[in-house]
Amino acid sequence: MSYDGTAFHGWQVQPGMYTVQGKLAAALEQITGERVLPQGSGRTDAGVHALGQVASFALDAPIPAPNLLRALNRTLPSNIRVLAAERVPTNFHARHSAFSKTYEYRIFERKRSSGGEVEDERICSPFLASFAWDCRWALSLDLMQQASTQLCGTHDFSSFAASDPDLAQRANPGSGANPVKTIYSSEFRRTGELLTYRIVGSGFLHHMVRNIVGTLVEVGRGRLRPEDVAQILAARDRSAAGPTAPPHGLFLVKVDYGERL
Amino acid sequence: MSYDGTAFHGWQVQPGMYTVQGKLAAALEQITGERVLPQGSGRTDAGVHALGQVASFALDAPIPAPNLLRALNRTLPSNIRVLAAERVPTNFHARHSAFSKTYEYRIFERKRSSGGEVEDERICSPFLASFAWDCRWALSLDLMQQASTQLCGTHDFSSFAASDPDLAQRANPGSGANPVKTIYSSEFRRTGELLTYRIVGSGFLHHMVRNIVGTLVEVGRGRLRPEDVAQILAARDRSAAGPTAPPHGLFLVKVDYGERL
Repeated sequence: MSYDGTAFHGWQVQPGMYTVQGKLAAALEQITGERVLPQGSGRTDAGVHALGQVASFALDAPIPAPNLLRALNRTLPSNIRVLAAERVPTNFHARHSAFSKTYEYRIFERKRSSGGEVEDERICSPFLASFAWDCRWALSLDLMQQASTQLCGTHDFSSFAASDPDLAQRANPGSGANPVKTIYSSEFRRTGELLTYRIVGSGFLHHMVRNIVGTLVEVGRGRLRPEDVAQILAARDRSAAGPTAPPHGLFLVKVDYGERL
Repeated sequence: MSYDGTAFHGWQVQPGMYTVQGKLAAALEQITGERVLPQGSGRTDAGVHALGQVASFALDAPIPAPNLLRALNRTLPSNIRVLAAERVPTNFHARHSAFSKTYEYRIFERKRSSGGEVEDERICSPFLASFAWDCRWALSLDLMQQASTQLCGTHDFSSFAASDPDLAQRANPGSGANPVKTIYSSEFRRTGELLTYRIVGSGFLHHMVRNIVGTLVEVGRGRLRPEDVAQILAARDRSAAGPTAPPHGLFLVKVDYGERL
């Protein structure tokens, strides 16, 4: 599924709130008459977008997947689209079966002018405003690239977990208990007017990508050094890392089920 | 100015409503302490976007244009950006001085499959949902191109004016009286997944572009013939034309002031 997260109060169904999970459940009930709660690969926060979210659910109705795909896209609001639908083994679960997830975070790039000041003349398009963070600081892509590679490998990511344990638990029940995650790739690149950070990992704690980006931006601004990242990881303390980047720059790009599917 | 019209109740200031003109006036007052009502080149409806809207106003403060530009972009919400600011002669007026205006209307393209049915498999990205009309009909670009060229020249566009005269008058005071407009160019082209209609004219009646697009889509669907456009113009009757296309596909691209500036 792909969705523009701007108007949603996140993935997770909440009474009276406009949520992706709630809209998907309502569409499934309208189509099949069955009340099911689709399980997502993870719960995106309000404002976070998805290019490739995955949800699983069990229906009694013997509706062929291509028909369900068409019916869902006719029923769902246009800011949620189902890109593909397929039948899976009954033991498949969108979250538990996931092998890795890929996120991207987009930042509107501002460069330091020759005089050292930020070039304020660069204007972030209003059509990007809900899809990239215009942090307004001049950032060094080189320093952020150096810092980002230090996150690769298996680490305890407690320093980058949401500081509210209740919140973390609610967001990723079951996974919240283990802060050790493996990062397969972590890199920044320049894509047109944007600096795009892409991270692939075995799993993510609540707010983890946004806390990582907030910290990498501190490096890009020169307030932290790339080599500080190792110490921040070692501290296992949220207060050691940088602030939480805003949600609207974040995209869940894809979920990989590898050989487990 | 460029703005994402999605969240706005249109251009025109209205008490208690989130409008572009209202936000611009509030930003100007915050920056200069002066209460002015900026005049736009035209009043875009709720949901209509702008890539190059122009507004004029008179300030007492001797603030240099580059400083005003920076201050406005720091003060305005991120879904409105001021792209340029310049001092103009006192007799300049964003609407009265305009020589021509260019609009674009974007439609998500669906093709007829070999069997004659619409290819429902094509999925309109949720990130396009607020910026293109997914009308769900298979459309003939060739027929729409033939029909669109018939609008060029000087005609009475009463058939394409908003049917509510009060509404038309309120939207374009002064210009509402004269339904004769000159269209310099009117063409459809394919741009990636979209069919993009671009029209350049001396002026536009309220809802005129959306009513033209709604009519051209009727031609694209095969419910009207390209040659019907001449008769629709001649009828000078709103009921002769097609329905009003939705606002979110429409962009005010630019306003040209030609030699008048």
